[in-house]
Amino acid sequence: MTYGQINPPSRLLMGPGPSTADPRVLRAMAAAMIGQYDPAMTTYMTETSELYREVFRTTNEQTFLIDGTSRAGIESALVSLLEPGDRVLVPVFGRFGHLLVEIAERCGADVHTIEAEWGQVFAPEQIEAAIIDVRPKLLAIVQGDTATTMCQPLADLGEICRRHDVLFYCDTTASLGGNEFEQDAWGLDVTTTGLQKCLGGPSGSAPITISDRAAAVINGRKHIEAGLRPSEAESDDDPEVGARIASNYFDLAMVMDYWGPKRLNHHTEATSMLYAARECARLLVGEGMPAAVERHRLHGAAMLAGVQGLGMSVFGDLAHKMNNVVGVYIPEGIDGDGARAAMLDDFGIEIGTSFGPLQGKVWRIGTMGYNARKDAVLLTLAALEQVLRAGGAQVTAGGGVGAAQEVYA
Amino acid sequence: MTYGQINPPSRLLMGPGPSTADPRVLRAMAAAMIGQYDPAMTTYMTETSELYREVFRTTNEQTFLIDGTSRAGIESALVSLLEPGDRVLVPVFGRFGHLLVEIAERCGADVHTIEAEWGQVFAPEQIEAAIIDVRPKLLAIVQGDTATTMCQPLADLGEICRRHDVLFYCDTTASLGGNEFEQDAWGLDVTTTGLQKCLGGPSGSAPITISDRAAAVINGRKHIEAGLRPSEAESDDDPEVGARIASNYFDLAMVMDYWGPKRLNHHTEATSMLYAARECARLLVGEGMPAAVERHRLHGAAMLAGVQGLGMSVFGDLAHKMNNVVGVYIPEGIDGDGARAAMLDDFGIEIGTSFGPLQGKVWRIGTMGYNARKDAVLLTLAALEQVLRAGGAQVTAGGGVGAAQEVYA
Repeated sequence: MTYGQINPPSRLLMGPGPSTADPRVLRAMAAAMIGQYDPAMTTYMTETSELYREVFRTTNEQTFLIDGTSRAGIESALVSLLEPGDRVLVPVFGRFGHLLVEIAERCGADVHTIEAEWGQVFAPEQIEAAIIDVRPKLLAIVQGDTATTMCQPLADLGEICRRHDVLFYCDTTASLGGNEFEQDAWGLDVTTTGLQKCLGGPSGSAPITISDRAAAVINGRKHIEAGLRPSEAESDDDPEVGARIASNYFDLAMVMDYWGPKRLNHHTEATSMLYAARECARLLVGEGMPAAVERHRLHGAAMLAGVQGLGMSVFGDLAHKMNNVVGVYIPEGIDGDGARAAMLDDFGIEIGTSFGPLQGKVWRIGTMGYNARKDAVLLTLAALEQVLRAGGAQVTAGGGVGAAQEVYA
Repeated sequence: MTYGQINPPSRLLMGPGPSTADPRVLRAMAAAMIGQYDPAMTTYMTETSELYREVFRTTNEQTFLIDGTSRAGIESALVSLLEPGDRVLVPVFGRFGHLLVEIAERCGADVHTIEAEWGQVFAPEQIEAAIIDVRPKLLAIVQGDTATTMCQPLADLGEICRRHDVLFYCDTTASLGGNEFEQDAWGLDVTTTGLQKCLGGPSGSAPITISDRAAAVINGRKHIEAGLRPSEAESDDDPEVGARIASNYFDLAMVMDYWGPKRLNHHTEATSMLYAARECARLLVGEGMPAAVERHRLHGAAMLAGVQGLGMSVFGDLAHKMNNVVGVYIPEGIDGDGARAAMLDDFGIEIGTSFGPLQGKVWRIGTMGYNARKDAVLLTLAALEQVLRAGGAQVTAGGGVGAAQEVYA
C-alpha cells in the first residue's frame, strides 16, 4: 500500500459549511510546534482569548478554545452546566436544535422543547411563555441553523433569562462572524462556535466564552481529588459540592484552570488548531466585526438576488434568513443530486443538499468566511446557470450574475 | 489591540512531548479544505483508516480518528465501553494511569486499581491475580507513561484477558511508533493514541482502533432515537439495549457509522487534522513500523549513553524504559528550572520537568517522532554540557556527545 501526499482537488466550497478556509489561516497552521508551557505558547493562548473576546463582543475573562469540532464546544457547555435532573428548555427550529436536545439528554437533563416550523423562528414572547411554564435552569438555543437557513433573534432573550433567573446558552457555530452577535449586550452566559463557517478556518477548534455567573456555576462543580470528594448525598444543595461533571475532557472547570493564570495541566493544547483559531480571529478583528457582518450581508444579498434572478424560489422566512446561507428550491425537472455532482465535477464548486423535511427539495448555498467574496458569488451563479440549463430548466441567460451585479452596483 | 501573525521562536522540543512536528506533516495541514462528503474527502478517510491499521498492526475494520487530543481518544473509548456500575481494573504505574482512573470514574464505573512504584512496571501475574480478584469487564492500562518513562509489557495480557473474558484497552499516546506494539498479535481490543509524541505530528487528533468484539459491545449501546428507546429498567441484560452512551461527541457507535460505509453525519471532520494524521501514518508506514521502532531505540540509546556520559544518573528500571524518553536526576547543586530555562532561552532546546514525586528531582528528555535524529540528540547533549558546566556541575568535556557517538559508531 502506497499513498501519495495530501493533494486535494481545487474546490470552491459554497455549501452550508465547511467553507473554504482562508489561505492565511492554513499557512498559520504550518508553523512549527512549541512546548505547552513555552512562554511563546502561553502568550499565544492569552492573545487568542483576547481576540475571541472581540469576536464574541464580550469582556468575559473565560474565553478560550475547546480542542474539538464545534459539537465538542456544545457538549462542553452543556455537560458542565447541566447536572442530572436539571431542567433545560430548547426551542427547536431546525436540525441543530435537535442536537442540543440530544446532547442535553445524555447529560441526564430534564429536557423540554418548543418547536417552530422549519423556515421560521421564535418570537421572544413564545420563549418567555415556555420559560414561565418549564422554569428551566438553562435556555439552550441555536442562533443560526444551516438546516433551515434561519437566524433566531436573540437580542431580547438575555433580559428574559435574567428576569426568570435562567442561564442562557447559544450555539453560534453557523452564524458567528457573519451575523450580528453581542455576547454582553444581549445578556448571554455561554456561547460556543466553530471555525469552519464564517470564521474562515478548518473544523477542529471550538471557541467558547463564559460569563462570570456561568463560570461560578461550573466552578461549583469543580472536581475535588479522590478521597476528598463529598458523597453524592451531599451534592444537591450546596453549589460548592455540585454533581461532578461527567466528562474529564469537557470539564470546563478544569479547562478554565488550564487557560487561566494557574495553567494547570489538562490536555495538551492542539497547537496547530490554536494557531488556526488565533489567525481566524486576528483577521476578523482586523477587519472589524461590524465590517465582517456587513460583508456577509452584502454577498449573501447578492447570492439571494442571483438565485432569484435564475428563476429559483427561496426557502423560509427571508426576514430571518442568515446572511451566509440561502435555501433554494430545486427547480422542477432537475435532478438535485445530479446537478450538485455536475457543479462539483465540472466546475469544482460544492453546493449543499438538505436534511430531514427539505431533503431532495432544497439546495443550500453558502457565502461565508473566505468565500463571502464577489468572485465566489459570481462564479457560483455562472456555473449554476450552465448546470440548470443543461438539466433542461428555463433560465434567463445571465439572469443570475446580472441580478447579483445589481446588488453590487 | 493588534497582534502579528503566528511566528513561533525556533525550538527543538526534546521534552516528553509534544515533540517537534515533521515539516511534511505541517505542510500537509496547509492543504485546502474539501467538503465532508466530497469523494476526495471520503477517500482520504478510508486511506487514513487503512494506514492506521498498519500503524497499530491490526486488521480491525474499526480504525479511525477521534477529533480531539489524545485524552479525547481515551475518553471516547472508556465512555463507550463502560456502563455505569461496570467494573474496570486499572494498573497504575504513573500519572496517566491515574488519568484512566479519573475518566473511568466519571463514566460511573466501579474502578479498581493496583499500583506499582514509579519507575517500575507490572508482571503479567500481578495483573492476572488482580483480574481474578476484581473480575472486571475491562482492563485499562497505559503502555508508556512519560511521567515515569516506563513501558509496560503487554504481550501476555491479551491472552490473560481472553481467558477471563475481559476487554483490553490500552492508551499508547506516548509510546506508539517508538516502541513495539502489536494490536492483534497481543490480543488488544481497543487502543488509542495521539500524534504529538512518536508519530511526529501536532496534538489534536486521536487515532483509535477497535476489535470486532469491542465494536459489538459498543454497538449494543447504540442510541435509538427518542421515543424508541427502551426504558432504563430493561437495559441491564440485553446487549441490544445497553445503557445509552453518556456522550454524543464520544459515542463511538455514532463515530463508527460516520467513518463506515453508512457515512452517517456526526461531527464535521477536522479536515486539517485529518490531513496531519494521514501524513503522520503515511510517513511511518513508508519507513516501516519495525524500522521506526528501531530508530527510536537507537536514538534513545544514544541519549541514554549521552546523559550518563555527562555523569548524570538515570531514573527507573532501565529494562523497561521507553525508547523515546529518559528521566535523569538533576545533578546536585543545579537549579533544575533555571537550567531548563537556559536550555530554552540560550539554545532553543526544550527539555521537560516532572510531575508528582519526581518534581524538582528529575528532568525528562525525549527523542521522539521527528526528533528521533542524531543531530537532535547531539545538539541537546552539547547544549546540556554547557548549561551544566555553567551551573557549576563537574562534567567531562565532550563526555555526553562522545558517549552518544559511540552508540552511533
